Amino acid sequence: MKKGFIYKRIAEILEHQILGNTLQAGDKLPSLRTICREYGVSQNTALKAYYLLESKMLIETRPQSGYYVRYSNKHLPGKPSVSQPLDVASFTGQEEIVATVYEHLGEESKHPFALAEPSLALLPVAKLNKALVLATRSLHGSGVAYDKMEGNERLRRQIARWSYAMECSLSHEDIITTSGCLNAVSYCLMSVTKKGDTVAMESPVSFGMLQIASALGLKILELPTDPDFGVDINALEKALKKGAVNACLLISNFSNPLGSYMPDEHKKDIVKLIQRYNIPLIENDINGDVYFGTSRPKSCKTFDDSGLVLWCGSVSKTLAPGYRVGWVAAGRFKEAVQRNKLYHTISTTSITQEVIAHFLETGRYENHLKKLRQTLHTNLLKYTAAIMEYFPTGTRISNPKGGFVIWLELPPNIDTRIILKRSLPLGINFAPGNIFTLQSQFHNCLRLNLALPWNESIEGNLRLLGSLFNDYIKKVAPSP
Amino acid sequence: MKKGFIYKRIAEILEHQILGNTLQAGDKLPSLRTICREYGVSQNTALKAYYLLESKMLIETRPQSGYYVRYSNKHLPGKPSVSQPLDVASFTGQEEIVATVYEHLGEESKHPFALAEPSLALLPVAKLNKALVLATRSLHGSGVAYDKMEGNERLRRQIARWSYAMECSLSHEDIITTSGCLNAVSYCLMSVTKKGDTVAMESPVSFGMLQIASALGLKILELPTDPDFGVDINALEKALKKGAVNACLLISNFSNPLGSYMPDEHKKDIVKLIQRYNIPLIENDINGDVYFGTSRPKSCKTFDDSGLVLWCGSVSKTLAPGYRVGWVAAGRFKEAVQRNKLYHTISTTSITQEVIAHFLETGRYENHLKKLRQTLHTNLLKYTAAIMEYFPTGTRISNPKGGFVIWLELPPNIDTRIILKRSLPLGINFAPGNIFTLQSQFHNCLRLNLALPWNESIEGNLRLLGSLFNDYIKKVAPSP
Repeated sequence: MKKGFIYKRIAEILEHQILGNTLQAGDKLPSLRTICREYGVSQNTALKAYYLLESKMLIETRPQSGYYVRYSNKHLPGKPSVSQPLDVASFTGQEEIVATVYEHLGEESKHPFALAEPSLALLPVAKLNKALVLATRSLHGSGVAYDKMEGNERLRRQIARWSYAMECSLSHEDIITTSGCLNAVSYCLMSVTKKGDTVAMESPVSFGMLQIASALGLKILELPTDPDFGVDINALEKALKKGAVNACLLISNFSNPLGSYMPDEHKKDIVKLIQRYNIPLIENDINGDVYFGTSRPKSCKTFDDSGLVLWCGSVSKTLAPGYRVGWVAAGRFKEAVQRNKLYHTISTTSITQEVIAHFLETGRYENHLKKLRQTLHTNLLKYTAAIMEYFPTGTRISNPKGGFVIWLELPPNIDTRIILKRSLPLGINFAPGNIFTLQSQFHNCLRLNLALPWNESIEGNLRLLGSLFNDYIKKVAPSP
Repeated sequence: MKKGFIYKRIAEILEHQILGNTLQAGDKLPSLRTICREYGVSQNTALKAYYLLESKMLIETRPQSGYYVRYSNKHLPGKPSVSQPLDVASFTGQEEIVATVYEHLGEESKHPFALAEPSLALLPVAKLNKALVLATRSLHGSGVAYDKMEGNERLRRQIARWSYAMECSLSHEDIITTSGCLNAVSYCLMSVTKKGDTVAMESPVSFGMLQIASALGLKILELPTDPDFGVDINALEKALKKGAVNACLLISNFSNPLGSYMPDEHKKDIVKLIQRYNIPLIENDINGDVYFGTSRPKSCKTFDDSGLVLWCGSVSKTLAPGYRVGWVAAGRFKEAVQRNKLYHTISTTSITQEVIAHFLETGRYENHLKKLRQTLHTNLLKYTAAIMEYFPTGTRISNPKGGFVIWLELPPNIDTRIILKRSLPLGINFAPGNIFTLQSQFHNCLRLNLALPWNESIEGNLRLLGSLFNDYIKKVAPSP
C-alpha cells in the first residue's frame, strides 16, 4: 500500500464491509490499537481512517467505548419536521388510544414498542433484590413505618450529590421525593397553577404530561419544537409577552417523544425568560442521565438562581419503574409541593427509596447507567438501520442524543392509528403520533421504545411493521 | 360462704381488688375455670359473678379472650358531646398546627400521641421482611417492573375475599389499589367532584380528609355527629334535600377522631338516602378491621346495589404504614378513579402490594389483627383509667368500639392548643381538637393515639399531660 493513501485505503476497506453488511449498524469497530497492529500503521494513521469514515456519517465515536457502525447501505434518513402547532389547543379524543397503549402496562411481552418502559432484561434485578435485603437492615423499622414527609434523607443526599454532575449544587434540603417523575410533575402543577391556567409545553409532548395537565383543568399551549434543539424560544417569548402562559413544563434533555436536546445556551435563555416574566418552569429531566455523549448534560435548574425552576427526575426509566421513586427540587415552591404530597398520600413508600439510596451510594447506579447508555445508543443505530431498510421511502427518523425513544415521521398520507389497529392483533404495539398532542397533528408519526434487548424478534417486528406501512401505501394511499 | 350469695361474694372480692387497684384497668381476670377451681363453685355461679361485675361496668368481656378490668376506683367518665357544627364552613388557619402534628412523621419517639400511627412495636416487622423476600421471588421481575394500572391482582383477589367478612361480595375486578387510604380518598374526590362542590363529612373529622378536600377546592359541610352512632342522618337528609351536597365522605366504622360506630340500620338508611338523591358516598373504612366486638362490622358498601358507594381501605394503620398500600372499590366510578391514578402516578409500588397479598393469603394478617385488637382494646381501658386519674374532673372520654384513637373533651374554658405549646418541649405531642374542623369548635378537645405499647413511660406522659391541664385550670382558667 502506498504510504500517502494508507488511511484512505483502510477507510475504504471498512466502508466496503459496512456497505456489504459485514459490519452492521451498531457493531463495534476494531479498536485503534487493533487497526495499528493489523495494518502495521501508526495510531495517527488509524485515527485518520476513522475520522474519514466519521465524516461520511458511516461510523460514530462513543465516549470511553470506541467506534461504532452507524448506518448500513442506505443514505441518511431525513430529520422529522419542526412542529407547527396552533396557538389554541383543540381537545380531541386521544383518551381511547392512550388506554390502548397503557392496556398492557406491566406485561412487557405485550407491548414491545408502545411504552417508554425499559425491558426487565436491561435492569439489574438481582442486584436490586440484594439491595432490598440490605435496605430492610439499614432502614429504621425495615421500611414498615411511615417515611418522613419530605422523603428518605439518605436518598435525598444522594440526589443532591448526583446533581453536581450537571453543575447544579443542590442540597438534600432542596429535595422532596415522590412516587415517580410524573407524580412530581403532578404535585408541581398543583403547586404553581390553578384551574383554567395555561401551561406551555413542547409539541409533540409526552402524553402523560398532557393527561395530568388536562386532568387538573389546565389549558395547554403547544409550542413549535425542533427535533434537535427543542422548544422554539421565540415562540415561548411571544406567548410570555402576551401574558398567555402561567407556567412552563419542558423536557430539557432528550425530550419525549421527539428526543430533542436543548443546548446549554437555550437553557440559559429560557431561564432568563421565565425570570423576566416571573413564570415557574417545571423541568422534567427524567432522561438526563441517559446521554449518548461524553457527560451529563446540564439542566435549566443549573442556570436558575431565582428558585423558579422545579426540577423533576426519577429512576423509573433507568432502574426500577415498579419502585415508584422520583423527586423534585422545587425551588421557591418547595413548601407547596410538600403540602400537596402530604395531602394526597401522606408519604412515599419507605423501602424502595432506601434501595435506590444504596444503589447511588455504592456507585452501582453509575455502573448500570454506563451499560444502559451503550445498549440504548446501539439500539438507536440498529433501529434506525432497520427502519431505513423496512419502512416506506421518505420515513424521517429522529436522531436523539440520549433517552429511550425514537420518533418517526412517515409520508403525510399515512394515519398511524390505522396501522396500529392492524399491528395489534399481530402482537405489535406502538405509540401513534397524535396522542402526543391535543391538536390535529402528527397523525403520520409514531414513537418506538428503544429500551428492549435487540434480537431477531425485535428486528422481525420492525420488518413486519414496515411491511404494514408499505402495504397500506400501495393499496390505500398511493402517493400522488 | 352461704350458697345463695356465693356469686355475690365472689363479685365483692373481685370488686374489692379492682377498687383497691390490685386488679388494674386492662388486666385480664381469672378464667371462669379458675374461678370454679379456686372457689369450688359451678361454672354457672362463676358466670353469675362476672355478669354482676359487668352490670356494674367494672369489667367487660372480650370475644375469644375472656374478661378484663374496665375502670378502677372512679366513676364512669362522661361521653363527649354530640357535635353541633354550623351549616357554613368558616376556614380558619389550622395549617400551622397540623404541620406541628406531622413534623415528626416517621420518628415514633417524638410524637407518642399526635398521629394515629401504630408503634413499630405493635407491627410484625420480621414477618413482613420474610414476606418481602418471598415477594421478590413470586412477583414477575421482583417488583422492578411497572405494576398493572389497576394494581396487583393477587392483592386485589385477597381484598375481595376479605370483603366477605363484612358480607360485601366484591370481585377483584371491582378493586383498584392505591398508595394508602388517603390516596384512595383523593382519587375518589377527584373522580366524583369538581372545584367548588360541597362534601358532607362528620364533625369532628380526620384532618387528612379536611386537607385533601380543601386542597381540591371543595367546600366542606360538617354534620352533627354523635360520639357513639356517628353522623346525624336527619341533618344529612336535610342538606341533601336542599341540594347542598355533591358528595359524602364518611368513616362508617370507628371514626377518626371521635370513634363513633354507625349501626347497621344507620348504614342502610344512609345508603338509601344517597341513592334517593343520587349522590356518591366515599366510605373511608380504614379502621373496620380493628373492632373490639365479636366480628367485622359491615360497611355502607355492604348495603349498596347502586354503585354509588366508593369503599376505601388500607393496611397503613394495621400493618405497614410505610408500604403505602391502600385500595378502593369505586363502584360505578371505577374507570374515573383508575384514570386519575394513571394520570397522577401511573401505577403504585409493585413489591409492597405483593407482600401484603402474601400476608392476607397465608392468614398472617388475621393472626396479627387478633393480637392488635387485644392490645388496642386493653390500651383503651388503660388510657381511660389514667385519664380519669390524672386529667381535670369533668373530662369526657370517648368509648370507641374499635380503632386507634381516643377523643377527650375537657372543660369548656380550656384551649388545648395552649397546652400543646407547653407539652411539646416536654416531648409530649397530641392532636388538638380544632384541627379536626374548619370551624371554631373543639378547642377544648384533643385526640390521643392508642396504638402504643403500654408502659410506665406512656402512663407518665399521660400523668404529666393531665397535670399541665390541671395547672392551667388552677392558675389561668379557674371554673366560675
